[in-house]
Amino acid sequence: MTTPVEYGTLYGLGVGPGDPELITLKAHRLLRTCPVVAYPAPDDGDSFARSIVEDFLPAGVEELPIVIPMRPERFPAQDVYDRAAADISNRLCGGRDVAVLCEGDPFFYGSFMYLFARLAEDHTVEVVPGVSSLTACAAAFGRPLAARNDVLSIIPAPLEESELRARLEVAEAAAIIKIGRHYEKVRRVLDQMGIAESCGYVERATLENQVVSSLTEFDGERAPYFSMILVYKGGEPWTD
Amino acid sequence: MTTPVEYGTLYGLGVGPGDPELITLKAHRLLRTCPVVAYPAPDDGDSFARSIVEDFLPAGVEELPIVIPMRPERFPAQDVYDRAAADISNRLCGGRDVAVLCEGDPFFYGSFMYLFARLAEDHTVEVVPGVSSLTACAAAFGRPLAARNDVLSIIPAPLEESELRARLEVAEAAAIIKIGRHYEKVRRVLDQMGIAESCGYVERATLENQVVSSLTEFDGERAPYFSMILVYKGGEPWTD
Repeated sequence: MTTPVEYGTLYGLGVGPGDPELITLKAHRLLRTCPVVAYPAPDDGDSFARSIVEDFLPAGVEELPIVIPMRPERFPAQDVYDRAAADISNRLCGGRDVAVLCEGDPFFYGSFMYLFARLAEDHTVEVVPGVSSLTACAAAFGRPLAARNDVLSIIPAPLEESELRARLEVAEAAAIIKIGRHYEKVRRVLDQMGIAESCGYVERATLENQVVSSLTEFDGERAPYFSMILVYKGGEPWTD
Repeated sequence: MTTPVEYGTLYGLGVGPGDPELITLKAHRLLRTCPVVAYPAPDDGDSFARSIVEDFLPAGVEELPIVIPMRPERFPAQDVYDRAAADISNRLCGGRDVAVLCEGDPFFYGSFMYLFARLAEDHTVEVVPGVSSLTACAAAFGRPLAARNDVLSIIPAPLEESELRARLEVAEAAAIIKIGRHYEKVRRVLDQMGIAESCGYVERATLENQVVSSLTEFDGERAPYFSMILVYKGGEPWTD
């Protein structure tokens, strides 16, 4: 006679923008109790998500790195997620909880959705929201993202130049994400629109090597993936 | 001979969407060490921000409620913030740190900006980002906010009907915030656009009395202020 195994729970765990102190109490608790953690990792180098919480991982935890080949402009091959989902499902079916570490928040432009799509139907999944890079960058730059009845648009930098411009024209405030090698294009659009002067540039928010400046003082030719441009078209949001 | 007093630091402390376990480790640490906390409070009833962290407040902490008269559609009179800023400045000048409790994140449509505008020039201010209602609602509804190169717009419900529609037409995904008494108007726009079926409705995310449903199943005539409608115009974000 065998006792039926109770399935484990899958946690999509937001670990915040980078400063380990910006994880939530809930993420902290789950990290200490989940016997398995999975996280995205580059094929060469350390996992950023793991680095945020490494001091909180208990000895003996099983680690499942999800190795994402880095290919500019292309989204990761779905077979990577097929395999990762199978590995995770295997642990869940064995009755073990699994925490998937997600930079920022799991449902804010994150890759967790690829696992969620594969596992949510057959397993119990709980998404634990985290501090997103969006608000971390605003805090670093020292200016509210938006106020009152402003529309705030989150705009990915890989969009075509004309599309970028069209989107920026109808927003009172915007955050341009995934800058990386699109920096020059984005900068050109903002310059042509005459709004570069009031933009903020933030790189690696909340980390020790954080960079914060006005956009016009930033003199790089490209920016890292983990950077953001904050766009304000009106005056100070608190005065009107 | 007197020793010069070192000024205190003002912390804008994001306390997350409602579940006390969704505050950050940093907010938790600062709550236990700041001798003064300030928070918005209605003229009748309890402060929501305070209720989130009440179990973490140490005995003897000085509390400064900032009483905001509730007046539909009008933003609070600036003299409330003038007085609150003076009270807070007084503590900072006396060398005491002050934490201002902010629902969600301090710089995501929050009232903290009114204090920031008054105090940032003369005092050391640190903004501690928090989990915003935006990502908490997506987690509750169980669907990513946006993916890949989608543009995500945050749209305040008080906008005029034609404006609401125009903004929704140019976004792949949107979160409509500050629903409250604007529910009927927003619902009409979404129905007319033929996109209500795929929208999600979330009320009081992460609290015990949280409500989550598809928009078409929600049968209220008005919604509380702390509710959000999530708009998805494409198919499942992870399939394309």
